[in-house]
Amino acid sequence: MTKTISLACGNGGEENNELISKVFYKAFKNEILDKSEDAAIIHNGELAFSTDSFTVSPLFFAGADIGKLAVCGTCNDLAMMGAKPKYLTCSVIIEEGFETRELERIVRSMKKELEINGAIVVSGDTKVVPRGSVDKIFINTSGIGEVIKKGISSNNITKDDVIIINRDVGCHGAAIFVAREGIEMSSSLKSDCESLYPQVKALLDAGIKITAMRDATRGGVSAVLNEWSRQSNVCIEVEEESIPVSDEVKGICEMLGFEAASLANEGTFVLAVNHEDAPRAVEILKTFESCSRATIIAKVTDTHPKKVVLNSSWGTSRFLDTPSGELLPRIC
Amino acid sequence: MTKTISLACGNGGEENNELISKVFYKAFKNEILDKSEDAAIIHNGELAFSTDSFTVSPLFFAGADIGKLAVCGTCNDLAMMGAKPKYLTCSVIIEEGFETRELERIVRSMKKELEINGAIVVSGDTKVVPRGSVDKIFINTSGIGEVIKKGISSNNITKDDVIIINRDVGCHGAAIFVAREGIEMSSSLKSDCESLYPQVKALLDAGIKITAMRDATRGGVSAVLNEWSRQSNVCIEVEEESIPVSDEVKGICEMLGFEAASLANEGTFVLAVNHEDAPRAVEILKTFESCSRATIIAKVTDTHPKKVVLNSSWGTSRFLDTPSGELLPRIC
Repeated sequence: MTKTISLACGNGGEENNELISKVFYKAFKNEILDKSEDAAIIHNGELAFSTDSFTVSPLFFAGADIGKLAVCGTCNDLAMMGAKPKYLTCSVIIEEGFETRELERIVRSMKKELEINGAIVVSGDTKVVPRGSVDKIFINTSGIGEVIKKGISSNNITKDDVIIINRDVGCHGAAIFVAREGIEMSSSLKSDCESLYPQVKALLDAGIKITAMRDATRGGVSAVLNEWSRQSNVCIEVEEESIPVSDEVKGICEMLGFEAASLANEGTFVLAVNHEDAPRAVEILKTFESCSRATIIAKVTDTHPKKVVLNSSWGTSRFLDTPSGELLPRIC
Repeated sequence: MTKTISLACGNGGEENNELISKVFYKAFKNEILDKSEDAAIIHNGELAFSTDSFTVSPLFFAGADIGKLAVCGTCNDLAMMGAKPKYLTCSVIIEEGFETRELERIVRSMKKELEINGAIVVSGDTKVVPRGSVDKIFINTSGIGEVIKKGISSNNITKDDVIIINRDVGCHGAAIFVAREGIEMSSSLKSDCESLYPQVKALLDAGIKITAMRDATRGGVSAVLNEWSRQSNVCIEVEEESIPVSDEVKGICEMLGFEAASLANEGTFVLAVNHEDAPRAVEILKTFESCSRATIIAKVTDTHPKKVVLNSSWGTSRFLDTPSGELLPRIC
């Protein structure tokens, strides 16, 4: 039987990792790629370089649109490496017949978000393809950031670190699901999509010792913590009740049968911070409007290396695995 | 009536220019973007940065495939700015059900072409979308090159320069048309898709005074010369018979009703070179297998500023305009 690529291969979870490692990493093998960071560190450690393509459906949803997402996604990958986003490229693939007015609305969103990051678009590409070759519009952004704090890496986490989250999880995944299914909700549920550079800058300006950062996009917090435990050969022990989840997201998770920790985010990130600096880091994060629920969620141990353990308040424990299966396609 | 985006807006010609300037340049306005070069020059002039998305159909065709094209396209944009391609990102959007074997074949092509450029892929992104959301596979590459010769710019062309072309034109456009229409040809017609950095390096190593370079992709040589005449406020006078065109491409052009000079290329570039260095530049180009027909095609004058004039051997003249209309969609 001919092997084909399934939706699960793009979910941010196990199958996605397998496709990436067996096809792309294998062919393109090099030291930088092997580090598997959010952004590549190049040019003597001075610059960070990252790319993302955005295929989200619908294009507009509570809290953001594909334009805001396209700028946040790439700028956040740079910020996660301790870099200030500086230069972006913008490459769009548009379906014939797409409304110019909608494109302008998307581009306005991009412009607004670029300003928050202090970044500019320096190069671009525009393709228009016949009806049916693409669903409405896909956007790729690639970005270069200037590293302001060297040495941040998912490969260096130790028992001296604790794990912090900047806000409640799962809002993006839940908001996309609601928008796509046309569910009427009287709630305030909206995507967490947000540029993270201001939060990162505040932490670095305060001298917080950050070991690693990663935005919990596809595959959510579960995917990040599992990747970190493997990359740094540590056990990450999470206090299950400490992961902040809004009531709206809890409700959607029950409908979907998902764990909130596996839902996608676009403005939620996980930090490994030296335990001495952790309380101060949480305080700094809490000064941001979206981060009132910033908190420590896990400690780093050597109990089960390369594993993430979820401890409940009534004393039970289980492994939190990298999500697998189809999850939600076209979430970002 | 609601304004929508037509296929012509992605043709590399007039409508494409209008969409880019009215929507993207307007919103993202900055000094670097205003230069409208093949790649942005950043980081104190040390680096070039460019992006391209590839949507070509079919994926495999005589002379290349989408993988080779994706590496050549971005590396060539960097080379055109006098930069050595160094770091690429690779972002793929794959349709559910796409064969893994075909993906591996594409990735192998990319790897081979990366080696020719001495470049590596340092970051990537993989999205899988449901059937019907994308036609098979689209690939974005973005690249960073190290500028080895500063000051190359389409805005600096003067009457001291002559215009050289490295080979015969239109092979890529003609090859795609033939592959798409399933035309049986007993000819040797194939895409010119090729990495141009080796040719650029040979010219720079020989100290050739290059004012500007541009690969004649969508919109072909006509689009490049028109853009250059406007950017540098000069008249470019082309000897019509001097533009090299193969018999196969001439035949396809007659079928399509196109000018060979407006067909897309992927390994054909135009150079503005100081007239004193021009003969030597042509000789150097001719040492490359694909460039046996390298030649001077035009002079730079002030007869009709911002215009391209086509002079025939029997003494007639006409303007060569930027191509417009639908041309061939999904050519790259």
